[in-house]
Amino acid sequence: MDIKIINAETVIFEGENVTLKSKEIGIKDGKIIAVEDKISDDITPIRVIDFKGDILCPSFINCHTHSAMTLFRGVADDLPLDRWLFERIFPLEAGLTPEDIYYGTYLAILEYLSGGISVFADMYFMPEVIAEVTKNSGMKCVLVSGSNDIGGDNADEVSSLIESRYNKFNSYDKNVSYMLGLHAEYTCSEKLICNVADLSYKYKVPTYIHLSETLKEVGDCTVRNNGLTPCMYLHKLGFFDNGGLVAHGTYLDKDDMQVLSEKNITVVTNPASNLKLASGIAPLYSFEKYGVNIAVGTDGAASNNSLDMFREMYLASVLQKYNMKDASLINAESVLKYATINGVKALNLKNTGSIEVGKSADLIRINTNKPHFYPKSNIIKNLIFSANKSDVAMTMVNGKILYEDGKYNIGISEEEIYKGAEKSINRLMKKAGFCF
Amino acid sequence: MDIKIINAETVIFEGENVTLKSKEIGIKDGKIIAVEDKISDDITPIRVIDFKGDILCPSFINCHTHSAMTLFRGVADDLPLDRWLFERIFPLEAGLTPEDIYYGTYLAILEYLSGGISVFADMYFMPEVIAEVTKNSGMKCVLVSGSNDIGGDNADEVSSLIESRYNKFNSYDKNVSYMLGLHAEYTCSEKLICNVADLSYKYKVPTYIHLSETLKEVGDCTVRNNGLTPCMYLHKLGFFDNGGLVAHGTYLDKDDMQVLSEKNITVVTNPASNLKLASGIAPLYSFEKYGVNIAVGTDGAASNNSLDMFREMYLASVLQKYNMKDASLINAESVLKYATINGVKALNLKNTGSIEVGKSADLIRINTNKPHFYPKSNIIKNLIFSANKSDVAMTMVNGKILYEDGKYNIGISEEEIYKGAEKSINRLMKKAGFCF
Repeated sequence: MDIKIINAETVIFEGENVTLKSKEIGIKDGKIIAVEDKISDDITPIRVIDFKGDILCPSFINCHTHSAMTLFRGVADDLPLDRWLFERIFPLEAGLTPEDIYYGTYLAILEYLSGGISVFADMYFMPEVIAEVTKNSGMKCVLVSGSNDIGGDNADEVSSLIESRYNKFNSYDKNVSYMLGLHAEYTCSEKLICNVADLSYKYKVPTYIHLSETLKEVGDCTVRNNGLTPCMYLHKLGFFDNGGLVAHGTYLDKDDMQVLSEKNITVVTNPASNLKLASGIAPLYSFEKYGVNIAVGTDGAASNNSLDMFREMYLASVLQKYNMKDASLINAESVLKYATINGVKALNLKNTGSIEVGKSADLIRINTNKPHFYPKSNIIKNLIFSANKSDVAMTMVNGKILYEDGKYNIGISEEEIYKGAEKSINRLMKKAGFCF
Repeated sequence: MDIKIINAETVIFEGENVTLKSKEIGIKDGKIIAVEDKISDDITPIRVIDFKGDILCPSFINCHTHSAMTLFRGVADDLPLDRWLFERIFPLEAGLTPEDIYYGTYLAILEYLSGGISVFADMYFMPEVIAEVTKNSGMKCVLVSGSNDIGGDNADEVSSLIESRYNKFNSYDKNVSYMLGLHAEYTCSEKLICNVADLSYKYKVPTYIHLSETLKEVGDCTVRNNGLTPCMYLHKLGFFDNGGLVAHGTYLDKDDMQVLSEKNITVVTNPASNLKLASGIAPLYSFEKYGVNIAVGTDGAASNNSLDMFREMYLASVLQKYNMKDASLINAESVLKYATINGVKALNLKNTGSIEVGKSADLIRINTNKPHFYPKSNIIKNLIFSANKSDVAMTMVNGKILYEDGKYNIGISEEEIYKGAEKSINRLMKKAGFCF
């Protein structure tokens, strides 16, 4: 046994229930090999970690992000959506180099690990750089194609690139996989959507796309496509036939939800980004009623601005209470599942997201010795409604501690990442002609 | 000079503008005596604190709270509002003793100080205990009467008690004051409201009340009072004639706002509590248009559940963007003022809330050497949209450091507070017949 964790208030999923139980956990070769009330003293672990009553939780699965957009944090705030996109984000993205993606992704990884995230589904440019950074850091990443063919007549070229990346990155590293996907209905031709749907049939694998994030997106699509919503239009083209994920889903209607439920599609909700960009509140309560799987993402740091699953879980619950005028809806236990085990289903990860024998040791320690955790009448409620991401004291991925008490073990120093990220944004701003 | 702070990115309010400037700050006898680019080396301070580029910010003013409700954290979550109140909070409050208030208030103070709050306006039972705890801790508190005469024919008795407390606590300690107030329109007789209005005339001082928190409150009042909203009804009785504060204001209409603006009444917004109890989103944008002063409160930990001004500032901004469908509204700089200088106006505090020579040294250090603060393109945006309360590294009140790097200097240990609070809630739960 490599590591034995003792005195851990352990998050256990049992069917619909989420409970905390005092457990001892054994870890060997990156996997959980024991979850017991008391592990036999005959077994001598290399290291014992005494949690002293802190929470042991499955690490979080960030199902929607654009990691390297950390570079754009703070440069496009308090602007209307169109100015945010066309005057800030697009001009800055036009100048991105591999070095920028490298430092931007690493900066996101600092936030992911210090906030308890072990897996991220990253839809962004230059997947070869994201893959390399993921491998070096020890994290787990699902690379997601976010391609489009807006302004070009090159659907076949784009889908060929997606296919070659699919084959390349799915045999790159055990911690990296690649998912077929497109940016959104409004940036892709029908031909490209059909090509990617064909690929999903060819490889029998799911797809990923931004869907119904804004009311404008839905309205524009219905006008272009004989009244079909983006969901119905993509469904007609077979894009959902092999399952997958959609990001946002802020303006899905009941027919859309029925389709997503039948096709086994997960909606990834990004409540912080949807608020800040004034998009809306996704109808999670209705998703639940239609049996649609719900997972959680942070979206990128240009629209959030913190890559913080605690904030997302909190908002996923309280915004739904507000929106439905019922303070009992979408409880703490539900959103904890959205951020962990539901992400496993969403990304087809199988061996993570819960604390069970045989699962990968992707675990976090949450320090509960802080005033906002007292009294400890109901620790799961405190975790969702009172805690924040700085309460994460340790993040372990594949049994390896990548973050502990403010220190990282990811093959590069924080100082180098900070310096690199500052240099990148300064160059990008200059190139785009911005000066603050 | 007692303390010199160097290398501080200092929050400066200049008219409508909020900027960060690199400054050195001198502190003596609890007051700010210098705010300069460079303080002369001829002056030798007792202690020099090198901020190393961290943010120096005025400490936050929590304008609406019920501190000792920390005891009820986690015991009444995910319940509809009526069950929350009648099945949980009221039965628990019925058993409160001075010892409970003591530990509950101290627990809140741990959160306040570690989250950068120096002043709190506390509407709760047993003000003599809150006053004592405040004095011992070194914090600043405005005690607020939250009396009612529901179910009793004792308006004169209640208003006499308010008056005696007003006189007692306004000469109790330099860090404690007492404000006239009532719980809410729906728990007070017309006689009691008039009596307290009379006291506000007698002493020429403002009043405080919960106002239009829910739609039900407004509807019930208009039915009882010939179409008058709670605001108009209280206005008719002269309750607002000497200024003051109202908490929540979620459902104020344009006539209400006009009155509040004319009477110089501050609305204290509590966005987290209003979401979690499914009450609504206060129309801050409209308050701004009507010239109503806006301050921020956390409300109590039974409905929030974290006493966290960072969360309140963040929500005050992004909820307004969402609600008005315009991502440019209520920017980062505005909400930083709500939480600081606007609270000064609200509570008539005069000598705190900004970093200027002559003001009380009520200051905080915010650690910006964390991944969510990089790149540092716009540190104020990062402070509001990306930071969290755990980034507070130091809180100073009257020039005295009460919190620094996880350690408190408040005359009692955290362990004693935690133990006392746990004991209190366990006894209260047992008394109320609850078992979890």
